[in-house]
Amino acid sequence: MNKDLLLQVHERVKPYIHRTPVLTSELINNMVQANVYFKCENFQKMGAFKMRGAANAIVSLSEVERQSGVVTHSSGNFAQALSLAAKKIGVKAYIVMPKNAPQVKKNAVKTYEGEIIECESNPIAREEMAAKVQQKTGATFIHPSNDDAVIYGQGTATIELLEDYPDLDYIFSPVGGGGLIAGTALAANYFSNHCKVIGGEPINADDAYRSLLSGNIELNDSADTIADGLRTNLGDRNFPIIKKYVEKIIRVEEDEIIEAMKLIWERMKIIIEPSSAVAFAAVLKNKEDFKNKKIGVILSGGNVDVENLPF
Amino acid sequence: MNKDLLLQVHERVKPYIHRTPVLTSELINNMVQANVYFKCENFQKMGAFKMRGAANAIVSLSEVERQSGVVTHSSGNFAQALSLAAKKIGVKAYIVMPKNAPQVKKNAVKTYEGEIIECESNPIAREEMAAKVQQKTGATFIHPSNDDAVIYGQGTATIELLEDYPDLDYIFSPVGGGGLIAGTALAANYFSNHCKVIGGEPINADDAYRSLLSGNIELNDSADTIADGLRTNLGDRNFPIIKKYVEKIIRVEEDEIIEAMKLIWERMKIIIEPSSAVAFAAVLKNKEDFKNKKIGVILSGGNVDVENLPF
Repeated sequence: MNKDLLLQVHERVKPYIHRTPVLTSELINNMVQANVYFKCENFQKMGAFKMRGAANAIVSLSEVERQSGVVTHSSGNFAQALSLAAKKIGVKAYIVMPKNAPQVKKNAVKTYEGEIIECESNPIAREEMAAKVQQKTGATFIHPSNDDAVIYGQGTATIELLEDYPDLDYIFSPVGGGGLIAGTALAANYFSNHCKVIGGEPINADDAYRSLLSGNIELNDSADTIADGLRTNLGDRNFPIIKKYVEKIIRVEEDEIIEAMKLIWERMKIIIEPSSAVAFAAVLKNKEDFKNKKIGVILSGGNVDVENLPF
Repeated sequence: MNKDLLLQVHERVKPYIHRTPVLTSELINNMVQANVYFKCENFQKMGAFKMRGAANAIVSLSEVERQSGVVTHSSGNFAQALSLAAKKIGVKAYIVMPKNAPQVKKNAVKTYEGEIIECESNPIAREEMAAKVQQKTGATFIHPSNDDAVIYGQGTATIELLEDYPDLDYIFSPVGGGGLIAGTALAANYFSNHCKVIGGEPINADDAYRSLLSGNIELNDSADTIADGLRTNLGDRNFPIIKKYVEKIIRVEEDEIIEAMKLIWERMKIIIEPSSAVAFAAVLKNKEDFKNKKIGVILSGGNVDVENLPF
């Protein structure tokens, strides 16, 4: 990967994504004593940055591969993203989901014409089922976060952010499976000469924090966090990038996540999901370290059940 | 009033307001079978269009008048708007509020350094108290909606909307005290040669609908609607404008308001208050009449208690 290739990725995915706005808030700037630039991926198609990586993964397929479709396992935003991107590009998408996944999530995938294949609710069952679908249909497996094309796609949010605000000192990204922060770190490295990337992670699912400490991919035994998009572990494609280019990871408590989320809802009048609030919670927690800096924050998504809020 | 004067109003208030974005949603356009352009006054300073009228009312004062401050009676967005505009312009604001107004609203006014004067919770008591403050301090009384400078200020949202989208066929505005829709109608009349203005009003507080029918200002006996910003009656300054320039008023049920609000929250990922949803609910209710049209919708504000939602 290099700068030109990442620009090519951006050009390739542009027809399938929104160029999301960057919002600011005087009140939040005063509160943090810094200039904070929110990259609003909650306004992205299907409501999350995942659309970028999914689109890039599919447009990167050969003509032959496209004919057999794509398969992933996800009950979250990537399921919707892959379904929608596949629909727009004219490719079949198979989505492996645990049979106890919420109906609302199944319906969202169906809206985008993804074909749901149900499995038992554990990591081994879903991988086995995805392999079975792959074997039967010839579909290409696309991992939600540990896939080069997905990682590069996610990096395009940072290309746009740095085009709009070239002199950012920091970009904060939430850390879940590692695709977003790896793409963010690659893009920041190529498109800025001084912008550092910092991850925000729930303390209750701090596998990435521990992985950076030990130098190996550590796993979450449990992951009891409201930030449901951040419960997954890193992978062998994104971890080397994270290790090389991410400055550090800041861990936040559950109440700090909820407080940051509520602050953004109330003050910015935009809807973000708990996983999105984690990066901003990390800024708030350590604001003394970032005084007067220019800070980009990636608001990763806005898919939340408004009938079931944490406040 | 004429076109040039309204442009001057816009220039005068620009330092004190945001030029709010206009957002669109593919999904909503498909649903309505029309092109809908949402003017996001929920992103306005203090969270509502009221900032425009309040700022214009204060900048319109003479130097001598400014020294004695301004007074209004409001427990809603205008209380905050007048306080913030006064603070920014360096004028004292007295806000008459019923003593049983929610603490959260009192706090918002205090944040903007408005001085709260409490009164009993009825229309006569608040008018008497405002008159008393006026007499004692020499402050200029500014009505939240029935004041020429306020009406013209509210019209600036439509100047911006028509600058961005000059060929709108309709603009929908909620109708409460009448300041916003009167300003909207004036601006549409001056800045478009064919754009019609339609009001959305809760059926439970349909004073404006009945006023247009009878030709006189009709009052709400009760106003049991979730759209708390729309419970007030029209006044003698705005009603003649409404009568002359507003095409019609469409009434909506409470469940239609809540449904429209939820749709915007979930699909557009932005927070709007129930009063804001009324104009869009009117579009949804009559969508057959507006097929393939270009429709502006003024999302009037986003100040909502996220701990107490109707869904």
